[in-house]
Amino acid sequence: MKLSQLGEKRIVEALARGLYASSSLSIPAGLDDAAAIRHKDSELVITSDIMFAPTHFPLMMPPEAIGRKVAVANLSDLAAMGAEPLALLVAFGLPPAMEFEFARRISSGIDSACREHGCSFAGGDTKKADILTLCGSALGVCSGEKEMLRRSNARPGDVLCVTGNLGDAYCGCQILLGKAKGEMDGKAKERLISAFTNPRARLKEGRALAKLRSGIAAMDITDGLFASALELMNASGCGFKFESKKLPFSAEAKKFAHLQQHASPVRLLEWGEDYELLVSLRKKDFGKAKKAVEAAGGKLVAIGETVKDKRIFLDDEPVDVHSYDAFLS
Amino acid sequence: MKLSQLGEKRIVEALARGLYASSSLSIPAGLDDAAAIRHKDSELVITSDIMFAPTHFPLMMPPEAIGRKVAVANLSDLAAMGAEPLALLVAFGLPPAMEFEFARRISSGIDSACREHGCSFAGGDTKKADILTLCGSALGVCSGEKEMLRRSNARPGDVLCVTGNLGDAYCGCQILLGKAKGEMDGKAKERLISAFTNPRARLKEGRALAKLRSGIAAMDITDGLFASALELMNASGCGFKFESKKLPFSAEAKKFAHLQQHASPVRLLEWGEDYELLVSLRKKDFGKAKKAVEAAGGKLVAIGETVKDKRIFLDDEPVDVHSYDAFLS
Repeated sequence: MKLSQLGEKRIVEALARGLYASSSLSIPAGLDDAAAIRHKDSELVITSDIMFAPTHFPLMMPPEAIGRKVAVANLSDLAAMGAEPLALLVAFGLPPAMEFEFARRISSGIDSACREHGCSFAGGDTKKADILTLCGSALGVCSGEKEMLRRSNARPGDVLCVTGNLGDAYCGCQILLGKAKGEMDGKAKERLISAFTNPRARLKEGRALAKLRSGIAAMDITDGLFASALELMNASGCGFKFESKKLPFSAEAKKFAHLQQHASPVRLLEWGEDYELLVSLRKKDFGKAKKAVEAAGGKLVAIGETVKDKRIFLDDEPVDVHSYDAFLS
Repeated sequence: MKLSQLGEKRIVEALARGLYASSSLSIPAGLDDAAAIRHKDSELVITSDIMFAPTHFPLMMPPEAIGRKVAVANLSDLAAMGAEPLALLVAFGLPPAMEFEFARRISSGIDSACREHGCSFAGGDTKKADILTLCGSALGVCSGEKEMLRRSNARPGDVLCVTGNLGDAYCGCQILLGKAKGEMDGKAKERLISAFTNPRARLKEGRALAKLRSGIAAMDITDGLFASALELMNASGCGFKFESKKLPFSAEAKKFAHLQQHASPVRLLEWGEDYELLVSLRKKDFGKAKKAVEAAGGKLVAIGETVKDKRIFLDDEPVDVHSYDAFLS
């Protein structure tokens, strides 16, 4: 049987689960945004993300944004665990015909992401490749198991929150690809493009939530809000009810959705690329969590609630979530 | 300017050095087999290795050996630092047309390597790719800076040692590729092929040396003995004098070299693939180091000495080291 007949989920399960793990591996492969291994009184959080041109680096994407994307994707996994970032590695697969200046600009994008997020760049590897390939790995740390934000932590009755605007990055990507209909003003276009080319990992937000040690669930929504909720559902056994009027869309994203003739900006949620965190936390903790995230310079917006019924709802309608499968498509 | 005009060394320098590093990054990018970051009283050692088919996984290489290679290459970097392995991540880039059974066997090779080396497999990533791509990352730990084996630790007057036989893996690879001249008996062929398909990282040896805290230098010799000595030379400012009659070649490797009409098995050292450590340590420490490595189940063979003259010698002849450059070639 070919991998294209199996689909990503079953491939990952077959390849990654059940492999050798010592008793100190506190979060094994495939359960969360990252794995964790206990060392003394610390939880070392580790993750890896591999990306290929042109699939993950669309044409017209500036090289700085390519470097930034591989860094931020990995840092975002740490953020979703509530980990403090320690170091980032990047393994480069580079075509020999690539211009040196292009490669240098990728590296400068990695550098600026590391600098802004306070994460040391610690090297990696450089090999010749047929197509541009970047594999990042990040190491972070939490003080003990209770400080980690786990996908399985969601409970019915929780407040469901998100750390920032939804859909902007997807709009920016479409504009960059020249696929956007209609005319938007320059400033608005720029802001949407920047959401795609210049994303931030929600590390400060993740740390602020983790430090509360309140059994908070989180994961990043780069695969799309609903697709990510589906993962959270499978990990926690809970369902999620989003309230459409609470979903934070920027004025620019609303305008973009309108110009694309989408019935509602909610359509933007079918795609991903937003490095925001989807968070589920106890109602009684919402006030202090919001305050803690705001004190760290971020925001925490309530967008619905966690429910017993193991389905995803938008208002009172169940959502039929199509998560994209690269192997089946 | 294209990358192919620059060569690997200059590319790596331009891309990896001088990027953001916090003060806790005790070994930055590009200086050693791995980087290290201080966390409390531990040094967290991290490394990454990316590999592509068919360059790094020649045709005829069994899938278990492919998985094992990506695991062992990363574990070997930890071994060269003297680190205790904690966890391995592997990011898979898989062609959709690949047979599931082939992918499963790659994963089983990773599993057996993790199991034998006592290193937890902690997941990674799985993406669709045009060609088989595997990127491993490993995390290990040393108790403080003094416990790390550093390339820069070599000193004139040191004993130069290696942890095992030289050239076997290259012979095995050539046999597997059908490029070997002459006939060898089945058992001998099998032993050489196994050195290539079933390598071990010298983790126990590295740990035994590291625990002596005696300012020992080490690096792995997968790029070839002389090419690795050149790196050690650049890091330490010392030269190295190998004694040809002390170089440990197996009877099978000698036979192989003879059948290829090489004047001497020393020719085998132009290629790499041996996951042995090249070690430089104080003369007074050699006895206890040898004993410690043997107690850990390994061996430590003296093969020459570290000298002031910043060149590589074989007996009294300077060696003109051609290190392979994938970008220039």
